[in-house]
Amino acid sequence: MSRKIVIGVMGPGEHAKDIDIQNAYEIGKRIALEGWVLLTGGRNIGVMEAANQGAKAANGLTIGILPGKTEDGISEAVDIAIFTDMGNARNNINILSTDVVIACGMGAGTASEIALALKAGKKVILLSDDEESQVFFQKMSPGNVYVVCDVENAIATIHTILELRF
Amino acid sequence: MSRKIVIGVMGPGEHAKDIDIQNAYEIGKRIALEGWVLLTGGRNIGVMEAANQGAKAANGLTIGILPGKTEDGISEAVDIAIFTDMGNARNNINILSTDVVIACGMGAGTASEIALALKAGKKVILLSDDEESQVFFQKMSPGNVYVVCDVENAIATIHTILELRF
Amino acid sequence: MSRKIVIGVMGPGEHAKDIDIQNAYEIGKRIALEGWVLLTGGRNIGVMEAANQGAKAANGLTIGILPGKTEDGISEAVDIAIFTDMGNARNNINILSTDVVIACGMGAGTASEIALALKAGKKVILLSDDEESQVFFQKMSPGNVYVVCDVENAIATIHTILELRF
Amino acid sequence: MSRKIVIGVMGPGEHAKDIDIQNAYEIGKRIALEGWVLLTGGRNIGVMEAANQGAKAANGLTIGILPGKTEDGISEAVDIAIFTDMGNARNNINILSTDVVIACGMGAGTASEIALALKAGKKVILLSDDEESQVFFQKMSPGNVYVVCDVENAIATIHTILELRF
Repeated sequence: MSRKIVIGVMGPGEHAKDIDIQNAYEIGKRIALEGWVLLTGGRNIGVMEAANQGAKAANGLTIGILPGKTEDGISEAVDIAIFTDMGNARNNINILSTDVVIACGMGAGTASEIALALKAGKKVILLSDDEESQVFFQKMSPGNVYVVCDVENAIATIHTILELRF
Repeated sequence: MSRKIVIGVMGPGEHAKDIDIQNAYEIGKRIALEGWVLLTGGRNIGVMEAANQGAKAANGLTIGILPGKTEDGISEAVDIAIFTDMGNARNNINILSTDVVIACGMGAGTASEIALALKAGKKVILLSDDEESQVFFQKMSPGNVYVVCDVENAIATIHTILELRF
Repeated sequence: MSRKIVIGVMGPGEHAKDIDIQNAYEIGKRIALEGWVLLTGGRNIGVMEAANQGAKAANGLTIGILPGKTEDGISEAVDIAIFTDMGNARNNINILSTDVVIACGMGAGTASEIALALKAGKKVILLSDDEESQVFFQKMSPGNVYVVCDVENAIATIHTILELRF
Repeated sequence: MSRKIVIGVMGPGEHAKDIDIQNAYEIGKRIALEGWVLLTGGRNIGVMEAANQGAKAANGLTIGILPGKTEDGISEAVDIAIFTDMGNARNNINILSTDVVIACGMGAGTASEIALALKAGKKVILLSDDEESQVFFQKMSPGNVYVVCDVENAIATIHTILELRF
């Protein structure tokens, strides 16, 4: 079997915080160095752009699951663009297609992805200091939500989750 | 123009609490009495089933946006079944197709619908005593999340929101 | 059970022929007079607009499954708008949600709906003098494609198909 | 920009003919040798399976856009699985995400993809001796449908289409 491990990095576009963008770049790079494929929402903004740039800096392979059907607004660091033309309904594809979901920061779109991931029985890593979201999602699905404080811990937690799965 | 006002009632299926089911039945009935169309996820369980039963008890019109493509698991109180065969990605259709979204109770699917609604710029009514979700969503989108404590208040809030829109 | 019978009328938008528009209006009207619900792609153009206008002229109930998420381009004769924001992927919802599919005229979008309907095991009525499509689809799924020459025959064929189903 | 060229190979699953399977294997291999990415519907059957096996025999990269959300029925020769859980609505994603679409054989699913591709303004290559489909689709969208008789011609036509685009 030739299937590759796919790690999803989710997070705000327009309203990403500096720390989220820094984390996303670093985590994209680390994902690539581990030999994993990076999957994001594919846009040229915020956490998506940063994660893709990080992955390409380490020669990783990047998949973008786009909300639209045209080139507009795609990250230049996306290798393979999947055009869904489904708007935010594509968030469900994002989480179904990843072995582990990491949320870098928080926003409405990201929250929908975390909720859909938990609904689908997936494990989610929160790399964010947003306490309300930590409390909310950990209560929603105890044991499936991992809160981490830095990129190092995020990568270690991905390894833990992958070992549970395979 | 012949367009009808459509009110969406979202909430847990399998893990609905008794109070959520009671509220959903009552709110479905009140929606029908107001002359509005009820839209739900269409399944024969939990909040969806109760809201549809309530609406039919008052001779309302009920639309179910189903996750599957077959008759299995549809509420018998759904008048018009929209078969999406899209699983939980249909949650985005639920919220895009309603003038106001009411969440009756909380769960992962419901949380995804609230988040997608806020992402789409919609106003959401929370009829639930789940404090973590109130705090989380009100912080996420201040001014767009209305917390209500009973059905009476929910209906009054729908009127308020509809007046803002039209 | 309160489920209503839903008949889908598909056909070209921008490039509809006069005869297709006349047929669509008449067939929408007849669907309403039979007490069935009309389902279309919901846009204010071509076969969709005409079928909805016909149904409303006879006080029918009309559902529009829209490709977008905004009011732009919706037929004023749609009672209930389902906003998918899925572009042409919504064509699959159109055919899954109808008890019988009628194609009024032919075009790329309509052809995709007929093909998806046959793939889903549905029966399709072709009301069109487009010979190439008749030959193509009848060979694709013998026994599931009914070619009719006028509205009267289309309605009679719907009755035949519904009797087979129930 | 790191975007790769993606070629989609579409065709029957369960009812593929021997010649279609042979062509799909060969075309998958040639796509890989050209350095293009192969995109298919991802299932372990018919044209999809053969194209993926061909591409992997030449060390290509293979993307599968799956109709479901689980491992069941995936081709082992898919490198990156995109789980849509959208059934045949995923056919629209298949064609939107490819630079050129090749249909290897004919069937209802394949016909829906060709029609959706033409609706989206894409060019389509038909590698099939099915005359009715050639006549039907060439009339539908003159100038956008290329009929080829063998793999060699299909690859040459992809080059021609790509040169028109870039």
